[in-house]
Amino acid sequence: MAIDRASLIPALKNVATRLRIDSLRATTEAGSGHPTSCFSAAEIVAALFFAEMRFDPKDPHNPDADRFILSKGHAAPVLYAAWAEAGAFDRDELLKLRTIGSDLEGHPTPRLPFVDVATGSLGQGICAGIGCALNARRIKSDYRTYVLLGDGESAEGSVWEAANVGAADRLDNLCGLTDVNGLGQSRPTMWQHDMEQFARRWRAFGWHAIVIDGHDLYAVLDALADARATKGQPTMILARTIKGKGVSFVEGKDGWHGKAFKKGEEADRALGELEKQFVPAPAGVNLAQQIPKPAVAARAAVPKPVAPPAYKMGDHVATREAYGTAIAKLAEADPRVCALDADVKNSTFSDRFEKVAPDRFYQNFIAEQVMIGASMGLAARGAIPFPSTFACFLSRAYDFIRMAAISNVGIKMAGSHAGVSIGEDGPSQMALEDLAMCRAEPNIAVLYPCDGVSAERLVAAAASHPGPVYIRTSRPKTPVIYSNDETFPIGGLKVLREAPGDVATIVGAGITVFEALAAYDRLKADGHTVRVIDLYSLQPIDRDSLVRAGRATGGHLITVEDHYPGGGIGDAVAAAVAEAGMTVHRLAVREIPRSGKADELLDRYGISASHIVEAVRAVTTGKPVGAVH
Amino acid sequence: MAIDRASLIPALKNVATRLRIDSLRATTEAGSGHPTSCFSAAEIVAALFFAEMRFDPKDPHNPDADRFILSKGHAAPVLYAAWAEAGAFDRDELLKLRTIGSDLEGHPTPRLPFVDVATGSLGQGICAGIGCALNARRIKSDYRTYVLLGDGESAEGSVWEAANVGAADRLDNLCGLTDVNGLGQSRPTMWQHDMEQFARRWRAFGWHAIVIDGHDLYAVLDALADARATKGQPTMILARTIKGKGVSFVEGKDGWHGKAFKKGEEADRALGELEKQFVPAPAGVNLAQQIPKPAVAARAAVPKPVAPPAYKMGDHVATREAYGTAIAKLAEADPRVCALDADVKNSTFSDRFEKVAPDRFYQNFIAEQVMIGASMGLAARGAIPFPSTFACFLSRAYDFIRMAAISNVGIKMAGSHAGVSIGEDGPSQMALEDLAMCRAEPNIAVLYPCDGVSAERLVAAAASHPGPVYIRTSRPKTPVIYSNDETFPIGGLKVLREAPGDVATIVGAGITVFEALAAYDRLKADGHTVRVIDLYSLQPIDRDSLVRAGRATGGHLITVEDHYPGGGIGDAVAAAVAEAGMTVHRLAVREIPRSGKADELLDRYGISASHIVEAVRAVTTGKPVGAVH
Repeated sequence: MAIDRASLIPALKNVATRLRIDSLRATTEAGSGHPTSCFSAAEIVAALFFAEMRFDPKDPHNPDADRFILSKGHAAPVLYAAWAEAGAFDRDELLKLRTIGSDLEGHPTPRLPFVDVATGSLGQGICAGIGCALNARRIKSDYRTYVLLGDGESAEGSVWEAANVGAADRLDNLCGLTDVNGLGQSRPTMWQHDMEQFARRWRAFGWHAIVIDGHDLYAVLDALADARATKGQPTMILARTIKGKGVSFVEGKDGWHGKAFKKGEEADRALGELEKQFVPAPAGVNLAQQIPKPAVAARAAVPKPVAPPAYKMGDHVATREAYGTAIAKLAEADPRVCALDADVKNSTFSDRFEKVAPDRFYQNFIAEQVMIGASMGLAARGAIPFPSTFACFLSRAYDFIRMAAISNVGIKMAGSHAGVSIGEDGPSQMALEDLAMCRAEPNIAVLYPCDGVSAERLVAAAASHPGPVYIRTSRPKTPVIYSNDETFPIGGLKVLREAPGDVATIVGAGITVFEALAAYDRLKADGHTVRVIDLYSLQPIDRDSLVRAGRATGGHLITVEDHYPGGGIGDAVAAAVAEAGMTVHRLAVREIPRSGKADELLDRYGISASHIVEAVRAVTTGKPVGAVH
Repeated sequence: MAIDRASLIPALKNVATRLRIDSLRATTEAGSGHPTSCFSAAEIVAALFFAEMRFDPKDPHNPDADRFILSKGHAAPVLYAAWAEAGAFDRDELLKLRTIGSDLEGHPTPRLPFVDVATGSLGQGICAGIGCALNARRIKSDYRTYVLLGDGESAEGSVWEAANVGAADRLDNLCGLTDVNGLGQSRPTMWQHDMEQFARRWRAFGWHAIVIDGHDLYAVLDALADARATKGQPTMILARTIKGKGVSFVEGKDGWHGKAFKKGEEADRALGELEKQFVPAPAGVNLAQQIPKPAVAARAAVPKPVAPPAYKMGDHVATREAYGTAIAKLAEADPRVCALDADVKNSTFSDRFEKVAPDRFYQNFIAEQVMIGASMGLAARGAIPFPSTFACFLSRAYDFIRMAAISNVGIKMAGSHAGVSIGEDGPSQMALEDLAMCRAEPNIAVLYPCDGVSAERLVAAAASHPGPVYIRTSRPKTPVIYSNDETFPIGGLKVLREAPGDVATIVGAGITVFEALAAYDRLKADGHTVRVIDLYSLQPIDRDSLVRAGRATGGHLITVEDHYPGGGIGDAVAAAVAEAGMTVHRLAVREIPRSGKADELLDRYGISASHIVEAVRAVTTGKPVGAVH
C-alpha cells in the first residue's frame, strides 16, 4: 500500500460507514437479517478488504488470491457490501438480499464466486480456513487466509479442533479475527467482553493472540501486520467490538440479534446517524482501485493415469485395504490429491498414502470435524481431499458434511469398518446409519465397493467426480470377484448372477454381496436361481437396471444391507423402483447390535445367506417374510 | 476410609496388578481388545474404585452413588475387571469378554447395570459427565462424577465444549482424569508426554488442573483429595502414564494399540511379569468390602398432570412456540424434566421453560455436542432432558445421538426451523435431513406435529416415552386444527379428510399437512376427493392405517415432505406399506435450496399444494409424475 496512514485511516473509516449503511439498507429492504452483527465487524472487514488482502474483485478464484472466510455467516450483508465496494458487482444488487432471484442469500454460499464454502453453521469457517491454509502450502503459494469468527461461535468444539491443528501444523499463513461483540443470539455470550478469557484459550492452544479494540482502525491494521510478521504459528486477533456499533439506540443492546431495522422511521433514524459518520477524506484516494492483485499464475495440474488394480481373482483383500492402495496410487498420479486422517490411518489404510506423499497427508489427530472442515477448504481451492476414518465417526462431522453438500465441494470421504461385520468391538464402532446420513444429501455420491477391484476403481472415479463423494469400506477381507479391467461408473451396478428363470433379485452391496452369492449357491442346489446385483453405487442409482431386474424376476426384489433399515439400501432401491410399481423386501439390521463374531452377527441380525434364502422362499411362495416389517 | 495409607497403598497396588492381569486374560481369551490402554489406567481405576468412590457394587443405580464414566471406552476390560473386583459379578465372567452371549462388550454399553452411557466414540464421556454432575445438583445429592479420558481423545472438540460448560456451571462435583499415555492408535498423540500442553489448556478453560504421575498411587489419592476439596470449579487430573505399563516388552511402545497378547508364549510371558508385581499387603485389608455405600435414599418423583393445550380452533401458532409452552407446562408438572439450550432459546421458545424453572434450564451456549452429551448423562440418572436447537444444528451432535440410541437413554430432542419453510435465512439454517438422521436409529421415536395442539400433546407423550425421542417443529405459524382434547399416541396418525370415493391418499406432516389440505380443497372444487393423513409419528409408524388408506384409495399414496427425499417421510411410508405390495409417490425437496420467501420455496421445490394437485392428477390418470424420480 502506497497510501500513508493519515490518508488511509479516514478513507477506511468511510468504507466502514458505507459497509454499515449498505448492510442496513439491504436487511431493511429484505425485512430480515442481522445488521447489528454486521456493524460490529465493519472496521475489521474494511481493513481486511481495503488495506490488507491481495485479491482481484473480478477474479476471486485466482489461486494466489488471499482468502476471506466469514465464519460468522449471519453477517453476510457486510461481506456482500465489501465485495460490492471492491467492485465485484453493482452496489444496487445488495438490495436484492435474501430474495429468491438473487445469489445474495441469507447466509453465504458458493453460488457467489467469492465464497469458498457455505457458512452459517457456526464454528465451521475456521476449519475450512485450515484447509485453505494447507492448500497454500500444497501449491507453494504465499496467499494468506483470513477467517472472521463470532465470539459466540467460539463455544463450538470444532473451533478448538481447528486451533489444535492450526498450531500443530504451524500455519502462520492463517489469521483468525474474532469479533467479540459480547452478545449472542438469545443472551450475552459466555465470556462477554472479558478479552482475557479468549486470549488465554488461544495462547494455551499455541496461537499468537492479539487483543485489540475492533473499532480502532490503527489497532486493526497493526494487528494484521503483526500477524503477517508472525512465523511458525497462526494468529488470532481478538477484537473487542460493540454489537450494533454506529447506531446509538441499538449499540450493545440485547434483543437486537437477527433483527432488521423497520422501514420508515426506525431505519431512517439509524441511517441518519450513520450518514453523519462520514469524515473528510483526502482527495484521490480510491481504496477499491488500489487493492493489490495476485499475479495471473495458472497452475496446470497434469494428472498422470492411475495405476490399475492388480489383484488375482479370488485374492482375499479388505476393501479398506484396497482403499489405501488406491489413494496411494492416486497420490502418485495427481498432485491435487490429499489425504486427511483422524489417528486411524493404520485401520483405514490411509497410511499407505502417507508413505507415498507425506507432504499431502494431513493428520488431524482424533478430531473429525476439522478433518472434514479442512477438506472443504482444500477442495474449494482446487485440491482433491480424501478424509477418512471409521465410518461411524463421520457422524461426528455430519453438520460439516451437510454444509459440504450445500457448498457442493468435492470432498471424497471414506468410512471404514461399516456395519456389524466389524464384529467384537461392538455397536459404538459400527456404522449402521452412514449410508442414510450421506444419501440424505441429494448431491453426495454414495459408493460401496465389495472387493479390491471395485474399491480401487471407485476411489479413482471419486477423484474425478466433480462433487462430494462418500465411499464405504468394510473391515473383513473379501474375495476379489472382478477382473482388473472391469469399470465401475458412478451411478452403475453389476449383475453378478442372471438366468432366464430367476425367481427373485437379490440386491446387496459391500459385505452382503457375498451373503447374496452364498444364498445363490444354496438356492441353486435346490433348483432355483436368483439374480444377484452388486449395488456399488447407491446414489446416483441405476434405476433402469433395477427395474429391469425386478420385472425379469416376478417383481421380487430383496435388498440386504449391513445397515439399519432407515435410509439405507432398501429405501434407496424402493425409491428407485417406486414409479415402476414395484415393492422391495428389505433385510437390514433392525435393532441395536452387540459384540460378537462377524458371522454370528450377520446371522443374528438377519442379513446372512440363510436369511436371504428364507426371504427368497417366502416372497416366491407368497408367505410373509418374517424378518421384514 | 479407615485404612491408613501404609496399608492402603500396597493393597491398592495389588488391585492394580489384578486389574492388569484380568484385562490381559480377558483380551487374550477374546483374541482382541486393548490391554495396553487398560494397563496405563490401572492405578487410576484402582484408586477411584477402592479408595475414593462411594457406591454399592450390587446396586449401581443408587441415585446417590458416585458415577464413573469410562470416556476412553476401549479400556473396557479394566472397567469390567474393577466391577468384578468390587464384587458386582463373578470374575470368571471376564473371560466371556466380547462374546455374543456376554454383556461384557468390546466397548461399554448400558446393557451392563453399572454403565450409564455407552462409550467408545471418543470425547463423549466428559459431556455425559456434565449431565451426571448437573443431575446431582437437580436432585440435591452430594454424589460426585468421575470421568476417565484418554489423552488422544482430548483432541475432540466436544471435550472443550464440556470444559467450557463445566467451568461456567462451576461443577465442583465433577472430576476428570486424563490418562496421558502419550500414544494414540496409529502414532504418538499430538502432545505426547508434554503435560504442560494439557495443563495450560484446562486452566485456560477455567478448570483446576493437577499434573501427576499416574502410576504413583500416593499422587493419585492426593489429587483426588485435592479435587474433592476444590470448590467452585471442576478438576482435571492429568496423569502421566505409560501405555502397556507393567509388561516390559510393550511399555511405551507404538504399534500395540488395540492388540491382544497372543495366547501361549506371548501372553504367558506378560502374565509372568505381572504376577511378580504383587507386593506384601497387610492382612485383613479387603478393599472391596470397605467401599463406602450410599444411603438407600429413594427419591419419589411424583409428577402432576400436565396442563392440557388451550387453543381455539383456527388460532395461528407456530409448533416451535407450542413446544415452548408445552415444556414450560411440563416443568411445572414434573421435577425430572429439564431443558437444555445452545443459545437459541428465543427461537426455539425454550426460554419459556427457563422462566418457569431456571434451575433446571441448562445453557450450553453455541455447543450442540455437549448439549446432547449432557442430556445423555442427565437421562441416565433419571432426569427427562429436553435439549433443543435449530433442527439443522442437531446434525452437529449426530455421533452423540447415535451413541444415545446405543445407550437407549431417554433424551427428548427438539429441532425447530425445519425445512425450506424457514424462508430467507437460506440452506445453512434449513434442516432437510434431520428426519433421515433420527429415523436411521431404530429406537428413536420421530415425531412431527403440525399444529399447536399436536405439538403440546406430543411433547407430553415424549416425556413419558421410555427411550430417545426426536420432535421436529416448524418456524411459520400454522392454524390449530385439532381440538384441545385430541390425543396423539406415539405410533399413530390422523386421517383428516376421508370419503368413500377418495382417489388417492396424501400423507403430509408438519407444514405440508396444510399444503395437503389446500390441495384437497382445490381437488374437491374439481369434483375429486382425496384422503389426507397427518403422519405426526414417523417412527414408530402406523402401518396398518397407511395400508388401509392406500387400499381404500386405489393404491395411490403420495407423500409430501419439507425434507430431502432420502430417508424421510416418503421412504418411511414406502417401507411401511412395502409388504402390502404398494408403492409410494414422493414429493420432496430434491436439490440444495436457496433463500427466498417460505411460500415461494415450497412451490419452487415441489412440495406446495399445486404440486400435490398435479401429482394426484398424474397418478390417478396413470401419467408419470414429473416431480418424482
